[in-house]
Amino acid sequence: MISSQIKVVVRFAETDAMGVVYHANYLPWFEIARTALIAQIGLPYTKLQSQGYHLPVLEANVKYKLPAKYDDELLVTATIKEMPALRIRIEYTVHRGNEMLTTGTTTHVFMNNEGHAIRPPEFVIETFKKYF
Amino acid sequence: MISSQIKVVVRFAETDAMGVVYHANYLPWFEIARTALIAQIGLPYTKLQSQGYHLPVLEANVKYKLPAKYDDELLVTATIKEMPALRIRIEYTVHRGNEMLTTGTTTHVFMNNEGHAIRPPEFVIETFKKYF
Amino acid sequence: MISSQIKVVVRFAETDAMGVVYHANYLPWFEIARTALIAQIGLPYTKLQSQGYHLPVLEANVKYKLPAKYDDELLVTATIKEMPALRIRIEYTVHRGNEMLTTGTTTHVFMNNEGHAIRPPEFVIETFKKYF
Amino acid sequence: MISSQIKVVVRFAETDAMGVVYHANYLPWFEIARTALIAQIGLPYTKLQSQGYHLPVLEANVKYKLPAKYDDELLVTATIKEMPALRIRIEYTVHRGNEMLTTGTTTHVFMNNEGHAIRPPEFVIETFKKYF
Repeated sequence: MISSQIKVVVRFAETDAMGVVYHANYLPWFEIARTALIAQIGLPYTKLQSQGYHLPVLEANVKYKLPAKYDDELLVTATIKEMPALRIRIEYTVHRGNEMLTTGTTTHVFMNNEGHAIRPPEFVIETFKKYF
Repeated sequence: MISSQIKVVVRFAETDAMGVVYHANYLPWFEIARTALIAQIGLPYTKLQSQGYHLPVLEANVKYKLPAKYDDELLVTATIKEMPALRIRIEYTVHRGNEMLTTGTTTHVFMNNEGHAIRPPEFVIETFKKYF
Repeated sequence: MISSQIKVVVRFAETDAMGVVYHANYLPWFEIARTALIAQIGLPYTKLQSQGYHLPVLEANVKYKLPAKYDDELLVTATIKEMPALRIRIEYTVHRGNEMLTTGTTTHVFMNNEGHAIRPPEFVIETFKKYF
Repeated sequence: MISSQIKVVVRFAETDAMGVVYHANYLPWFEIARTALIAQIGLPYTKLQSQGYHLPVLEANVKYKLPAKYDDELLVTATIKEMPALRIRIEYTVHRGNEMLTTGTTTHVFMNNEGHAIRPPEFVIETFKKYF
């Protein structure tokens, strides 16, 4: 299992007229957390991109338990629980102190510059093998 | 079953550096489609709000099959398949012509001004009963 | 003078915790209006792009007089008042019925695929000459 | 003169199909910088809000010199150069290392809960007097 955690302070731009964070705005935070996660194991996303690899989102899921508000300081955790095969599944939690506000998952696949789904490149598999 | 369809033209603001629509930006389209859906059966969201009712998102799910691009003209369909009980489940598709680009679901619950989950108000249940 | 007008219905995603449209969210509407404006005179932006031309924003200015709210139906007008030279200046207004909510301007320059500012291509100048 | 500086790392969600930061997305960064600025002098925005004061944007201006890109680490500086009277004018710069990418200004007025423009409250004037 590999896991990474980032801090986010809620921006006013991320709130909506219900006075809380608009529900779509959790997905960019998940993205920051998963970018931190893969950078942490030596696979910075900008490097993957420059080598012609992309990790588009195949599926995203968010469960909203408690609302986040303007200026809240949040901890967003991204976790990969199982050795990725063709698909990479990442799980997320958003906490404000001890309160868990949100959970979610995203599923990804490696894609080349031509937009075709491909197997994870060998150096990625080798990297993951160190952790699982 | 009740269903409603809206047209969306992809804004440049909705694209990302992969040259396609950023994955979080489908959720606001789903919201426009479900607002049209409940307005179509006589429950405009602004009226629900003015009466102290809200329909926050409990869960959202999006599956990305093909990417939408800048200036694409899309049809977003929202469908309620079963008579809602405490929770209201809405399904979505996004089409570009005959291509289905995206599917999704959201789950909602009625909430009062104090932020508590409540049963759907009687006039909402009566309205739904006409359709199921 | 050339002018174009588009209709926008305020999305819930565009509001903020003050209950009104977040101030940055007028800029995407300006973009839709100016895209309609240049398409109207025969220069669709997607065609300009496919020929290697871009129209990045050099400067943007927005004046907020009255707030727009969720579900408001707005008219956004884009106007070019003077024959463009190297720079193209576009003016905007946002109306809700007779009320003028917002005004703005953006300034643009033609850019090639290499990211260099260039003179407007000849066919663009010829097109503009028909209107000024 | 009072000045405050914040760090921003460009999110993928903030880019557009030109491969750079979408022009509207500088405004939320300006907001984070001015919130830091007024918090730094002892006027946290959440406290102002809880006392019934708001600081809506009357006017915003952005000049784009060089584009910011995904994952760029940026410094956003907010500066108040003159003792505010009825209106508060804030200036911004966005730097990537030694390069200045963007400049801007916003103008604000104090507003009460009823949405009326008001003079800055006495404790705000006293606070500003310490710095000018």
